[in-house]
Amino acid sequence: EAMPLERLTMLVVPAKEEPTLLVPRLEAPRVEERPDLFKLQVWNETDNPVALVAGLVGPRITMAIGDHTWSRFLLALQDELPARRWLPASMITGPLRASKDAAEIDCLARAAAAADRVANAIHAGEIPLVGRSEAEVAGDIGRRLVAEGHDKVAFVIVASGPNSASPHHEPSDRVIGRDEMVVCDFGGVLDGYCSDTTRTVVTGEPTPEMQEMYAVVAEAHAAGVAAATVGTACSEVDAAARDIIADAGFGEFFPHRTGHGIGRDVHEEPYLVDGNKTPLEAGNAFSVEPGIYLPGRFGARLEDIVVATEDGPMALNGADHGLVVV
Amino acid sequence: EAMPLERLTMLVVPAKEEPTLLVPRLEAPRVEERPDLFKLQVWNETDNPVALVAGLVGPRITMAIGDHTWSRFLLALQDELPARRWLPASMITGPLRASKDAAEIDCLARAAAAADRVANAIHAGEIPLVGRSEAEVAGDIGRRLVAEGHDKVAFVIVASGPNSASPHHEPSDRVIGRDEMVVCDFGGVLDGYCSDTTRTVVTGEPTPEMQEMYAVVAEAHAAGVAAATVGTACSEVDAAARDIIADAGFGEFFPHRTGHGIGRDVHEEPYLVDGNKTPLEAGNAFSVEPGIYLPGRFGARLEDIVVATEDGPMALNGADHGLVVV
Repeated sequence: EAMPLERLTMLVVPAKEEPTLLVPRLEAPRVEERPDLFKLQVWNETDNPVALVAGLVGPRITMAIGDHTWSRFLLALQDELPARRWLPASMITGPLRASKDAAEIDCLARAAAAADRVANAIHAGEIPLVGRSEAEVAGDIGRRLVAEGHDKVAFVIVASGPNSASPHHEPSDRVIGRDEMVVCDFGGVLDGYCSDTTRTVVTGEPTPEMQEMYAVVAEAHAAGVAAATVGTACSEVDAAARDIIADAGFGEFFPHRTGHGIGRDVHEEPYLVDGNKTPLEAGNAFSVEPGIYLPGRFGARLEDIVVATEDGPMALNGADHGLVVV
Repeated sequence: EAMPLERLTMLVVPAKEEPTLLVPRLEAPRVEERPDLFKLQVWNETDNPVALVAGLVGPRITMAIGDHTWSRFLLALQDELPARRWLPASMITGPLRASKDAAEIDCLARAAAAADRVANAIHAGEIPLVGRSEAEVAGDIGRRLVAEGHDKVAFVIVASGPNSASPHHEPSDRVIGRDEMVVCDFGGVLDGYCSDTTRTVVTGEPTPEMQEMYAVVAEAHAAGVAAATVGTACSEVDAAARDIIADAGFGEFFPHRTGHGIGRDVHEEPYLVDGNKTPLEAGNAFSVEPGIYLPGRFGARLEDIVVATEDGPMALNGADHGLVVV
């Protein structure tokens, strides 16, 4: 994994020739040489790595570049190779990565199981909530993700009370009180594959309104999972969850898609979103995570990772789906 | 700060009109509205945010895009606005950011002081090294960076024994032994500004060769700092440190530039590298970090953050510059 810094590391993959990995000299000791897989080319601090890539690429009509590559590198490459057509590499890698083989599903399952153990710890009160800040609880969840087997933490959301109505709330200094909804959404990376799960808990007695709303979220979640069969359009899985929420009168309070693919990235193809007519294939792995968010009041979300298989949807997460009182 | 995910968050800044911040709906609750500074435009999951940006931009000849913006967004924008000229935003923001005002230097000084306290803790043996893995020690250093006032950890390198010869070594399961060189390079973010400091220690008695080599690194470091005066070309600061190392016969073992600018990013302009003839200006803040790396054996680096001022170079770090025995 390259450092996310300004020195260019780039794997150059010509259609018919041998790939070359271009790395800055000071990163070279980190590279495991694999001459069977790629040539290694090291650049020095006073070299122009973009010119070196252009030299390796040579005359091509069409080139694809990593979706996450910094714009400054793409702009410099476009200056060096002005006549070419540029596409995002995900046009090639997206479908390949969306279809997981058995070894990849095993990695995702182990990551999900590790995340489930963290969810179980929250449910069991092993990670105390009341009287502590969201940031402190997020720190505990992160450490627990690693303790349960993740190699690193990808993200932790702890959103309490009114903050639970903000889907991507950043854990803050807010101290969690009693009788509050708390959305805990977290994930890490284990053997290169990601986990991502959400459980919503209550620190005390849920009000009837909380219970009613959460029941709708849980029903939408179950409907989304059940709809995630091979051949079903991604948009239809989204609709299966969304219709439950809309029918219950909460449609305007579910502002995000139902799910996203997951693998080496936390978010990748396929996206379960209205308008995406792509049918699910066996081996697709994705989140199903409907939520309802009442601005200024409270919100809830329930998320599992699911794999589409020829035998139907297979959920990788299994922690309690209820509105657990902690 | 936008989530580093696939939903586009973009600040659109026309040359003469009001800026607009485009954010995904589910991130909108995280935005503090500042109508005096920018308009807020929220996009829904089924909108095309790139088309919305193109609409906001309208007819322009030249556009600049954030250097770190993902290529997939730039490629999509280029498709929407094909006739335009695209430049990296750092052409505008780089010089602005390289020149720090007093408040920014205060932030950098506080971050450096917090990092120094971590270096002092390593020197004092409060973070034990021998018998523990590099990864464990890196975890301790990260927690200590936060305990000393950083808002988050940016990176931690712990490179022991032969690993110390790899400038950007990733902390591993290697257990640190006695009589080894250990390069500790770490930094975090405090009030939006970065720290970045390196100290090399020995777990026991250094050999005469280690002492001799370290003395060269320390001398090169002092020469680099002394050369960092207003009006001196960046390349000359690099040369001041590099000449010491080359004269001592270690030239081929110093494979990286002498330093990089620092501010809101860990690495930004100005870069102290051969070929960069830009003269230092008052308010430039940068690392001075020469190193010597003997492949397969050991290495050492010494790094402080320095500000060029009208009164001469001002080092923000002050932890012991010696090869401390821990």
